[in-house]
Amino acid sequence: MAKTAWAETPEKIERWGLFEAVLEATVDGDPFDVELVGVFTDGRMTVRAPGFFDGDGVWRIRFSPPETGSWRWASESPVAALNGRSGRVEAVAPSAGNHGPVGVVEAYHFAHADGTPFRQVGTTSYGWTHQPEAKRRQTLETLKAAPFNKIRMLVTPNAAVSTNTPLSPFVRTGAGETDFDLDRFDPAFFRRLDASVAALGEIGVQADVILFHPYDEASGLNAMSAARDERYVRYVVARLSAYRNVWWSMANEFDILKKSDAGWDRLFQVVRDADPHGRLRSIHNWRRLYDNGKPWVTHSSIQNGSAVLDDARAETYRSVWQKAVVFDEVCYEGSLSERWGDLTGPEMVRAFWHGLIGGTYVGHSECFPQEGGTEGGFWLGEGGELRGESWTRLAFLKSVMEAGPKPGIDPIDKWWEQHLGGVAGQYYLRYFGDAAPTEWAVDVPRDEIVGGERFKVDVIDTWNMTIEPVAGAFVMQKRDDTKYFFRDPARPTISLPGRPWMAVRVTRVD
Amino acid sequence: MAKTAWAETPEKIERWGLFEAVLEATVDGDPFDVELVGVFTDGRMTVRAPGFFDGDGVWRIRFSPPETGSWRWASESPVAALNGRSGRVEAVAPSAGNHGPVGVVEAYHFAHADGTPFRQVGTTSYGWTHQPEAKRRQTLETLKAAPFNKIRMLVTPNAAVSTNTPLSPFVRTGAGETDFDLDRFDPAFFRRLDASVAALGEIGVQADVILFHPYDEASGLNAMSAARDERYVRYVVARLSAYRNVWWSMANEFDILKKSDAGWDRLFQVVRDADPHGRLRSIHNWRRLYDNGKPWVTHSSIQNGSAVLDDARAETYRSVWQKAVVFDEVCYEGSLSERWGDLTGPEMVRAFWHGLIGGTYVGHSECFPQEGGTEGGFWLGEGGELRGESWTRLAFLKSVMEAGPKPGIDPIDKWWEQHLGGVAGQYYLRYFGDAAPTEWAVDVPRDEIVGGERFKVDVIDTWNMTIEPVAGAFVMQKRDDTKYFFRDPARPTISLPGRPWMAVRVTRVD
Repeated sequence: MAKTAWAETPEKIERWGLFEAVLEATVDGDPFDVELVGVFTDGRMTVRAPGFFDGDGVWRIRFSPPETGSWRWASESPVAALNGRSGRVEAVAPSAGNHGPVGVVEAYHFAHADGTPFRQVGTTSYGWTHQPEAKRRQTLETLKAAPFNKIRMLVTPNAAVSTNTPLSPFVRTGAGETDFDLDRFDPAFFRRLDASVAALGEIGVQADVILFHPYDEASGLNAMSAARDERYVRYVVARLSAYRNVWWSMANEFDILKKSDAGWDRLFQVVRDADPHGRLRSIHNWRRLYDNGKPWVTHSSIQNGSAVLDDARAETYRSVWQKAVVFDEVCYEGSLSERWGDLTGPEMVRAFWHGLIGGTYVGHSECFPQEGGTEGGFWLGEGGELRGESWTRLAFLKSVMEAGPKPGIDPIDKWWEQHLGGVAGQYYLRYFGDAAPTEWAVDVPRDEIVGGERFKVDVIDTWNMTIEPVAGAFVMQKRDDTKYFFRDPARPTISLPGRPWMAVRVTRVD
Repeated sequence: MAKTAWAETPEKIERWGLFEAVLEATVDGDPFDVELVGVFTDGRMTVRAPGFFDGDGVWRIRFSPPETGSWRWASESPVAALNGRSGRVEAVAPSAGNHGPVGVVEAYHFAHADGTPFRQVGTTSYGWTHQPEAKRRQTLETLKAAPFNKIRMLVTPNAAVSTNTPLSPFVRTGAGETDFDLDRFDPAFFRRLDASVAALGEIGVQADVILFHPYDEASGLNAMSAARDERYVRYVVARLSAYRNVWWSMANEFDILKKSDAGWDRLFQVVRDADPHGRLRSIHNWRRLYDNGKPWVTHSSIQNGSAVLDDARAETYRSVWQKAVVFDEVCYEGSLSERWGDLTGPEMVRAFWHGLIGGTYVGHSECFPQEGGTEGGFWLGEGGELRGESWTRLAFLKSVMEAGPKPGIDPIDKWWEQHLGGVAGQYYLRYFGDAAPTEWAVDVPRDEIVGGERFKVDVIDTWNMTIEPVAGAFVMQKRDDTKYFFRDPARPTISLPGRPWMAVRVTRVD
């Protein structure tokens, strides 16, 4: 991360990189309440980036340039020492691996700002940033080797694991579990959060930053006044928005928290208006869904494991809101007796395949006891090591996604019982789940097919991670008995091995 | 229907009945553009009911009293002869069979204003009102014997069947298919519509009045200017709103029509604001869903046959919008080669059972050629006779619904793979579709169960229309192997006959 004082010396950072202006002052009153904004312009557009107090007389303004070129900045503040500071920064072409922030494309999919598809294969570890340094580093090492390109993580600690680290988002006033001064942020806590987000960015993982959650009733952190909620949200946004791998999740299980929908509407708008970089915004449910049709929701983040128990239900969420859908909790792979944490590896992987066929995306986590054996000891709660069987298969799934259409897969001929995801006329994916078929009819629906098209077929074992091509081409002709499907009359079916967890891929070859 | 002139004599009508004031005048200019409203008050509430021109120098104001008691009314109009007319009408207790208009209750269900549940078992016959009198009468006779308590019907003719009758909503200016004066309504057309709605009311059938549809590109009726659309909507609402069996369907397959979503928003609001009786409002889709979360949508009317191919998908539409859902088109029973009209009888019935388990409602129609054999000759297009096998089974289904919980059935323990609809602790319904099980485990999910509850079980053959009680009671105890289910350890399963289309009903007996 490049840092510059308010000296005039321009520095260079990459487009979509993080520029930081550091300003110093001594103020009367609460330094967290000082208004400060950095006004950045390249002559074509102007971006107003909020500053924040970082303790010890230091304020920072962070900005991620959306375009290459020369950006001038100047600070605005009622505090004279923080007002009228200015400088210049040159945004240069991004280096390899910097594809920019992720946004929604073609309504239902994700891509980086440079157009690179973002094939979401997510995981959740609520409290990984709240763990001791050794465990945090272990989590990052695990992620480096894992397929996950997005992680859901809490800002404020989950009560179950909050004692693993002495840091809290609000300054402690005593040793009791409610002894916090909810008017005073602890910058040290947030510096660790910054560093965690930055570390994820370095290994290409999006940080789905969960602003509120219901897992800490005791401390008061999660049932603050509306004014404190807003002040807290503005502080987090000012600190983190310039990291290009940040997504905002307004809440985990929002409907357990004691806020009205109007309250959530307002907080969504606070985030939208405070965030000069326009990072993605979603909200995650327990049993009741927030109206994801509202304009400040950029994509749907849904907890509903039953939605990915087959290849059809997931699609309904796309069509109702006409937004990209991530099933961010579908139960977890694990050994719990609780049904939300008892998925087998194959069941966890199946959820991802079903979501993919439905044109949506899915999230993983694990609940296997680690050393110590508390609930918080799970990957879900603390990070650490992965112990399940699904994550390697999810890496395989991701490779199939990456070899597929850009930016992603849509249901084919939706609302008819097709079981196919892909791109009509070009690419079809069929997943059989725990069925163990010995044969499959290579029928393609008529959309974008006129006859004469040639396809190749691959048989995919999603569990054993093999792809076996079927020899020769399939030349499509209209079926005699229906106008809805085409097939190759010379080879209408293929053989399948009679094992579960199989898929078939049909790809146009000319 | 009671009629009164503007004489002072009060008349009596039933609560929720139709009062009509008849006013006469001679005006300069377009009589359809005369402003006229009747202001009705019982001293507690005031209702402003729009009047309308009915031809031959006659205007009418229709009003359906929402409460019993004495209602005074007075007319307001810029036309002196129509202004300041007044009268009084006594609204008396409704007679048997008059349960009042249907509204949404408990978010997901319907009931009449007197609290009687309305178990929607719908059908569609787009053009039945546009047929010659003999066929219209035949349709009404058919409906009298059928289970359907709601019918979807177009206001303006479907081009395919419009030649069956000389009447058109707009005055003809010639014999050509586009020869209409879109500024002049034909009252005779609308009097027939009134009479059709009234006739449905008399046999207890709700009229789901479809204001716009895309099936008449030639005449210009379905691609009018925004101003004409609004004038047309106001005219239909003024005529029909006082009939207590009217529902408003903004459109059939709205997304084929060339209107923006903002245009639909506006028309929805025109209907809402023009309708003093607050009748139900929905909009029906082709491939794209309107945002049913918008506040003027009272319930969801969805075309998606795949949503009721299993017992799980239907529920998703409830939870996203938190509104009652009617799957108003799920393909039709018929003999077409088109896939939207080729359902077998069992498939048509299956759709209703799946919808029921999911806490939603479903619509029927038929596409069997009748004498003459055109597309319009179907029940779907013209009404007439029912020729399918499903409607008798839908009558049976309706009897099961009516014997069930009020106001209806909800999914049990939603988002977990339960396959049960009902009321937790009281009533469970399981439907097996085309599976032909020989056994079923009588497990009930833990919600509202503590152990010791007694249930009776009925085996239902939904096709052969039989209900066979299983002898004796089932006394629930917590299962040893899971905390999520209870069963009777003495009789954990029941036998089933190995036929398709079976259901099981589990009812609390103490």
